[in-house]
Amino acid sequence: MAMSPENEHPVKAFGWAARDTSGHLSPFKFSRRATGENDVTFKVLYCGICHSDLHSIKNEWGITSYPIVPGHEIVGVITEIGTKVTKFKVGDKVGVGCMVGSCRSCANCKDDLENYCPKMILSYGAKYNDGTTTYGGYSDIMVSDEHFIIKIPDNLPLDGSAPLLCAGITVYSPLKYYGLNKAGMHLGIVGLGGLGHMAVKFAKAMGLKVTVISTSPNKKKEAMDHLGADAFLVSHNTEDMALAMGTMDGIIDTVSAVHALLPLFNLLKINGKLVMVGAPEKPLELLAFPLLMGRKMVGGSCIGGIQETQEMIDFAAKHNIVADIELIPMDYVNTAMERLSKADIKYRFVIDITNSLKPF
Amino acid sequence: MAMSPENEHPVKAFGWAARDTSGHLSPFKFSRRATGENDVTFKVLYCGICHSDLHSIKNEWGITSYPIVPGHEIVGVITEIGTKVTKFKVGDKVGVGCMVGSCRSCANCKDDLENYCPKMILSYGAKYNDGTTTYGGYSDIMVSDEHFIIKIPDNLPLDGSAPLLCAGITVYSPLKYYGLNKAGMHLGIVGLGGLGHMAVKFAKAMGLKVTVISTSPNKKKEAMDHLGADAFLVSHNTEDMALAMGTMDGIIDTVSAVHALLPLFNLLKINGKLVMVGAPEKPLELLAFPLLMGRKMVGGSCIGGIQETQEMIDFAAKHNIVADIELIPMDYVNTAMERLSKADIKYRFVIDITNSLKPF
Repeated sequence: MAMSPENEHPVKAFGWAARDTSGHLSPFKFSRRATGENDVTFKVLYCGICHSDLHSIKNEWGITSYPIVPGHEIVGVITEIGTKVTKFKVGDKVGVGCMVGSCRSCANCKDDLENYCPKMILSYGAKYNDGTTTYGGYSDIMVSDEHFIIKIPDNLPLDGSAPLLCAGITVYSPLKYYGLNKAGMHLGIVGLGGLGHMAVKFAKAMGLKVTVISTSPNKKKEAMDHLGADAFLVSHNTEDMALAMGTMDGIIDTVSAVHALLPLFNLLKINGKLVMVGAPEKPLELLAFPLLMGRKMVGGSCIGGIQETQEMIDFAAKHNIVADIELIPMDYVNTAMERLSKADIKYRFVIDITNSLKPF
Repeated sequence: MAMSPENEHPVKAFGWAARDTSGHLSPFKFSRRATGENDVTFKVLYCGICHSDLHSIKNEWGITSYPIVPGHEIVGVITEIGTKVTKFKVGDKVGVGCMVGSCRSCANCKDDLENYCPKMILSYGAKYNDGTTTYGGYSDIMVSDEHFIIKIPDNLPLDGSAPLLCAGITVYSPLKYYGLNKAGMHLGIVGLGGLGHMAVKFAKAMGLKVTVISTSPNKKKEAMDHLGADAFLVSHNTEDMALAMGTMDGIIDTVSAVHALLPLFNLLKINGKLVMVGAPEKPLELLAFPLLMGRKMVGGSCIGGIQETQEMIDFAAKHNIVADIELIPMDYVNTAMERLSKADIKYRFVIDITNSLKPF
């Protein structure tokens, strides 16, 4: 008998999957491997909805295999550990982010940059080394090698912590790598969505001066009064943009639609750094002159390694940083996806898996 | 009487100037200021021809005021020093590069980055603080505040040293700033012209593995046998480019025509850096995905500060690095410009000012 998602592994599991490019999610029976000697198995309590989930279920990047169970902001409580597991015990609050595997031997893995390992295994829609498919956190249980398990500190609420595992590390890692984490620096943050609002919180906790740059004037009050940004720029207000020219040490650009980079370069000081964490599919226009004349640069960054993800969570715990979320039941997920596509969310949907994912 | 170039200053000078967008250079009488207390005056012996000179005389950047005396790779021997000059004496071999002034008080100036000072004064075609025009090194004498004077070490031939003052520092500075100067690193150099051939020499002296990337297969022998590059890639040979994917720590891109960046990003390792020192006028296409997926970046760099220029010259002296030049008489300059526009030069024209610039 050919192996099916339901019987390829010994442990019964269930979740919600998309079956085609409509992206519509519906209940799905599958299976997970038994807890291996280095594995941690945990009951999923909450799972964040990342914009990547929306891209994936609709196959917008052209790489989706169906059925797909999305979710890579997964938190829960350990129910079983393997015989060789050393870092965790049953009952620990833990999470899994975007990856559940990597080669563990390449230069990147040795540098704790599993996220850049060419053999990195994504938490959903990818293939394990044994050829079986990875299924994400819109599901009842999760299993992973302990290396890819993150410990969630006790003082962090689990629901608001879930988005730290992708949105959080995605903005924390470049702040560190590009040296934009020094108190007193002036940071611009373009876009105030899931990533942007996390960037404001981390940057403020690091002691930075933060200016949010947005197309929407009506986000000003929220950005400054609620999230604590120091200033707000409407990107099409050329007068205000001109006044802010040459004032920023760096910019975290979270926008994933095609947009103009030149006005952002203009905001940077000499040696300023523009870091893209959103990924427009089509090319942007890059003028060389502003790069040369101000020794400026534009770089990218993609999530973070496991060690740095743990560091980020511990930093978040120390500074009481969690995502601002809207907690939703499992059967609201298709509506949530529709709202997400219209950016109608402050700032992250989190699925209340434990209280609303019903077996069928 | 209105001030003219010929009588606005007390010291008679002559050189060659362009008078209109034809860019044709012809003899030109003008004047230079008397040696001020902080000034160094020197007799010009040699002046390199930079591609910027060609752009400027034809007003291709739209900022040229005529008449213009180009030349910012200027070397000679000091004939007079001001009463407060401390670093130089009459008879010293010295040079002036792209700038003859800056505000000396801004953050960039204080960081020895006069090249990024908003009030930096270019060596030609710009305005001094007194409103008079700066004239470059296609001329008999030069005067500058000693701060902007570079000492040329005795062991360096003066003619081949001239291009170090622009082409040399333009590639040396980014190798340092972007951390691409560590022995054993693998550096790509795109384009083998005035800048590219200097980049090969500096990078080899720093102990790097160097691969030249060019559109011209016929440059391979020259790059490897003569300049000492370790490898050569023809940019349109997709097979060889594919074999070299992910092997380079950094790339110095000297090309000033519009070109594809994606094949260059593909050559970079994780964390790889693409540095542009050429300045295409039109925008290039920038895809975000390669930046994100490999934490890669593209940056720029523009010449270097005075302290670093001196450091570069001293490094060149230690490693016997000069430009490969074709020494030409002054009256060959228009032909040289025509050849330069066709890249028909290995690798830099230098004008033999002292032996061929005739008073008239």
